[in-house]
Amino acid sequence: MKHLSTLSATALLSLSLAGGAIAADLKPEEQIETRQAGYQFMSWNMGKIKASLSGDYNQETVQKAAEAIAGIANSGMGALYGPGTDKDVNGVKTRVKPELFTEQAEVGKVAGDFVAAANNMAEVAATGDEAEVKQAFGALGESCKACHKQFRKDD
Amino acid sequence: MKHLSTLSATALLSLSLAGGAIAADLKPEEQIETRQAGYQFMSWNMGKIKASLSGDYNQETVQKAAEAIAGIANSGMGALYGPGTDKDVNGVKTRVKPELFTEQAEVGKVAGDFVAAANNMAEVAATGDEAEVKQAFGALGESCKACHKQFRKDD
Repeated sequence: MKHLSTLSATALLSLSLAGGAIAADLKPEEQIETRQAGYQFMSWNMGKIKASLSGDYNQETVQKAAEAIAGIANSGMGALYGPGTDKDVNGVKTRVKPELFTEQAEVGKVAGDFVAAANNMAEVAATGDEAEVKQAFGALGESCKACHKQFRKDD
Repeated sequence: MKHLSTLSATALLSLSLAGGAIAADLKPEEQIETRQAGYQFMSWNMGKIKASLSGDYNQETVQKAAEAIAGIANSGMGALYGPGTDKDVNGVKTRVKPELFTEQAEVGKVAGDFVAAANNMAEVAATGDEAEVKQAFGALGESCKACHKQFRKDD
């Protein structure tokens, strides 16, 4: 674990614990659907930020979108990767790779980086400086892609 | 509109504007899926709060769940009720009642009450006082139900 930064380790802990006892309450297919719901809602908000940065910059839209993303990122989605959620189940499909369930240190790193980037984005969005927001948004997008590349199947 | 409180009117404005130009970017079926994703993710977090209040109270879990709900509630979901999203479309089902698209003042009231209750819940959760959290959570649940009762079909 020593290659994990303190921030990543803290974020990983947060991912693991915040939803802690809850995974057991959702069936595997419900866990898959719920994590996908979180990603879909974040994706919509990423799209709003991208559109705002590409057109007329709207600080309020960007800040609210960034806060939605950060709220979801901080909510303990690790709990939605419980036993039995590593493959399609009861008609609910998942693109997760098996590696996500075995490479704990690497998962902790990408998850921690993502949470940190989402929180940074929300902080920067509150300042309303478009150039800084663009940079923070780019970093957040990279943190998404890093996980997709390693732990999500292409189709 | 005069029966709307200032808070509700402000929240409604926020609902309408925050996602403003974005509805046009998503197809009707994508708008339906995205709003359902938001509700599903909020429901998961409501369940975590309920479980925490029913068992061993975990302030961090409750606060993070409340912040996820507030982030989603504040993100301008009104933009996901665009033209063509009032009925099933391209295989994507919706339980929304037609009244949601015609009773603007009443929709503004229930939406504004919900956003206010979600923000209150997040503020109260940050204090960690379980009795106050229970009250705020009850009020938030009532605001969900008020909309479901008026604007969501039972099946």
